[in-house]
Amino acid sequence: MHLKVYTEMSQIIDYPVEETLDPENWDSMRTLGHKMMDDVIDYMSTIREKPVWEHLPDTAKKQINKSLPLEPEPAEKIYNDFLEHIMPYPSGNIHPRFWGWVIGTGTPMGALSELLSAAMNSNSGGLDHHSANHVEKKVIEWLKEMMGFPDTGSGILTSGCSASNLIGLTTARNTMASYDIRREGINPEKSKMTLYASVEIHSSNQKAVELLGLGSTALRLIPVNEAFQIDLKVLKEAITKDREEGYFPFCIIGAAGTTNTGAIDDLDALADICKKDNLWFHVDGAFGAWAVITAQEKHLVKGIDRADSLAFDLHKWMYMPYEVGCILVRDEKDHRNAFSLTPAYLTHGSGGRGMTGGDLPWFSDYGFQLSRGFRALKVWMSLSEQGINKYSRIIQQNIDQIRYLEELIKTSPELELTVPAILNITCFRYVGTEIDNTKLNELNKRIEIELQEEGIAVLSVTTIKDQIVLRAANTNHRTKRADFDLLVREVIKIGNKLA
Amino acid sequence: MHLKVYTEMSQIIDYPVEETLDPENWDSMRTLGHKMMDDVIDYMSTIREKPVWEHLPDTAKKQINKSLPLEPEPAEKIYNDFLEHIMPYPSGNIHPRFWGWVIGTGTPMGALSELLSAAMNSNSGGLDHHSANHVEKKVIEWLKEMMGFPDTGSGILTSGCSASNLIGLTTARNTMASYDIRREGINPEKSKMTLYASVEIHSSNQKAVELLGLGSTALRLIPVNEAFQIDLKVLKEAITKDREEGYFPFCIIGAAGTTNTGAIDDLDALADICKKDNLWFHVDGAFGAWAVITAQEKHLVKGIDRADSLAFDLHKWMYMPYEVGCILVRDEKDHRNAFSLTPAYLTHGSGGRGMTGGDLPWFSDYGFQLSRGFRALKVWMSLSEQGINKYSRIIQQNIDQIRYLEELIKTSPELELTVPAILNITCFRYVGTEIDNTKLNELNKRIEIELQEEGIAVLSVTTIKDQIVLRAANTNHRTKRADFDLLVREVIKIGNKLA
Repeated sequence: MHLKVYTEMSQIIDYPVEETLDPENWDSMRTLGHKMMDDVIDYMSTIREKPVWEHLPDTAKKQINKSLPLEPEPAEKIYNDFLEHIMPYPSGNIHPRFWGWVIGTGTPMGALSELLSAAMNSNSGGLDHHSANHVEKKVIEWLKEMMGFPDTGSGILTSGCSASNLIGLTTARNTMASYDIRREGINPEKSKMTLYASVEIHSSNQKAVELLGLGSTALRLIPVNEAFQIDLKVLKEAITKDREEGYFPFCIIGAAGTTNTGAIDDLDALADICKKDNLWFHVDGAFGAWAVITAQEKHLVKGIDRADSLAFDLHKWMYMPYEVGCILVRDEKDHRNAFSLTPAYLTHGSGGRGMTGGDLPWFSDYGFQLSRGFRALKVWMSLSEQGINKYSRIIQQNIDQIRYLEELIKTSPELELTVPAILNITCFRYVGTEIDNTKLNELNKRIEIELQEEGIAVLSVTTIKDQIVLRAANTNHRTKRADFDLLVREVIKIGNKLA
Repeated sequence: MHLKVYTEMSQIIDYPVEETLDPENWDSMRTLGHKMMDDVIDYMSTIREKPVWEHLPDTAKKQINKSLPLEPEPAEKIYNDFLEHIMPYPSGNIHPRFWGWVIGTGTPMGALSELLSAAMNSNSGGLDHHSANHVEKKVIEWLKEMMGFPDTGSGILTSGCSASNLIGLTTARNTMASYDIRREGINPEKSKMTLYASVEIHSSNQKAVELLGLGSTALRLIPVNEAFQIDLKVLKEAITKDREEGYFPFCIIGAAGTTNTGAIDDLDALADICKKDNLWFHVDGAFGAWAVITAQEKHLVKGIDRADSLAFDLHKWMYMPYEVGCILVRDEKDHRNAFSLTPAYLTHGSGGRGMTGGDLPWFSDYGFQLSRGFRALKVWMSLSEQGINKYSRIIQQNIDQIRYLEELIKTSPELELTVPAILNITCFRYVGTEIDNTKLNELNKRIEIELQEEGIAVLSVTTIKDQIVLRAANTNHRTKRADFDLLVREVIKIGNKLA
């Protein structure tokens, strides 16, 4: 177990054998890598030919479910297991007829970028003068530009909009508190902080409020109007009432694209209220924020550039592979003050030299992650590959396709449109000749299931005013109008059969 | 702009031209992919020949810093820009002589896995009967097995240990609170919750405590003994005193591998205290938890399997590419109750059919992320590729290499060992003939910088008892003992020159 090594110190030293996790044979790894590349390109380019979703079979579950590996397995064998048992059973959102929940498609360039990122394995949490941080800085600048945020604002890429909302609301809480809340913690004796959003706001906001120790009761859920937008009159009354009762209203969360219906609050009006009443304006723009880059629809998100913090995804609309979201904050100082903490072993930012001498601000000072991967690369490469004008067209295309679907629904007597689409989401149901709502609820849930299990299309369901309805959310760059023709035909066929 | 499309409905319909983000020419994308694969394999296999770190040049910054792309750029051009300006300037932790902070190396198989994950683009937040969730479930089971956690425990992969600590401490707070804290929020009137950790605990725990609204003052920082472990006597006194003064001690955080010195608290003793006093026992085991898989060092983390929640990384030790960490929770119910929230549009878990009929629990019910990427794949493939026995040997190798470095330090009169290594971290400084501490502090910071800027090695510095010391943390599977020979020689050379 000992090997003579001729060291750089020009001594012959008896070292023990030293191992590494690198492949013994790089050529074999290279060959395997090329096989993977071919398979991946085949997979992505032929996805339309496959079922949208296939039930993971028990044989695959069994193979995945192997005992903890004690000794090495050949890389080729592991990869073959992947090919046979894992790769054919994705969650399906890469397919042209996946419109369930709100899930993005991904792109080939996005996937390739992930290989490059992982090979570099750069830590974007900090460290100076390496490329990853500069790429992220640039990407954040582009995002600020697109969202109409000032240059002086700050931002950070996140794992997705849940994390973005959490960071945004942390910044809101810490900035607006009348005392040092990072140090002293939440104390209703000092301040009963409340915040406001519509009943349609995404659940990640409530999760963030709970995590932040404010309690879900602090999040006042305001009813919506007929367009599923927050009711401004009720909102103002609620704020006034809370003030009168000794609460401290500190934040309004505006929705730019709710999950149920894609509704967009009147952001400009919310910004006015926040300005007048000195409230923090957070916008949850998970997918809807991206209407801002379209010529025709950007009026829907008017006022989004007035947010104090703006959360959105790039793995829904913008179609980048998981995970990537963003939080922008208007005032960099607020953002940094909410998160920065520098123990001795992370000291940085002065001296001018080395990896801690000062370059860019460290991204770990703007969120709860310290180590961070190089997720900015896929954003930089994807935006370069497509250009914003094309993203704008494809987002518009998704919206237009949903309007097309609505026309199909309206002209099909078996179907009923639940809510006219505002953006890229429509809710509808099969009714046929049935009038009993309970039966219709069961029937439409069943239709959703049959569509999935037959591999035809993936919709999800939601409940709107006691109706379980089919819901199509289009953040899919592979979808064509013909896919919606097929969908409508199949919904009617299944509905007729089951009714 | 209109195209005749023959649809599956057998109608001729006038559709507008529909675009996609897929490449116009898949063959070109395939060719580019193969070029990337060759470059990535070359890059990883020759990394030893390069400087550990190179200052990102201004020309590269300028290229990265381009205007927001409006129109498509050729994929080949984007990639060439990447090759020239981004890839040569990583943060350096892939190099055999990177020992700064605590940053892992990554592996080729890990990088390839990321390509596969991104191509599938599965959402591991939920949805039923697709492969990604089953892979993550299996990986969590393996991790529980390795960490000695019961089968009945739960767990989730995270972006890293900061997120793991946040999830663990959220679970602790919510479970231990005497009232429904998710609903009502933190209220010192009801309960002045306090938690305990040593002064050496990682800053991410304080960040989590602040985020959770407990306030940093609620985190009682207990002094350490000579071995940099939490002082058990002072800890017990602090808990007793807090109780007497009306506080509610609810949690102890044990460190399994502190950042400064790699110190490991007496976890068994902490578990005893927690059991006796009914406190939640959270362990921050970022890298140190992995001592558990070594034969020789596992005694150091005795008691880790008694944690109520255990946070650790797989991108430090375990060497997987960013980002991947894990949180395990002893009682699945506590974990789920801390995070689960199910609005209508996420209803799942009953009916037995389709993508919401019930399969595995949805991972989004165990953390703050809803959409989640398929990070489990790199864990599954890496563990399969190497087997645990090899990881065990390489972790032991890292520890032994640090002991070897210590021998070199001890036998070099110019150097002074600050703290004997407990695990894989050693702190030392160049002293030469200097005796003034301020001058030595400046000198050692300067040595760190010179080592970095000359591309020889990356150490970081920290401050221990007013001494700025050089710090080597070895979570590097590419390191050989000869690299430490080189390091010591260069530290002395630079020190002599600058002193």
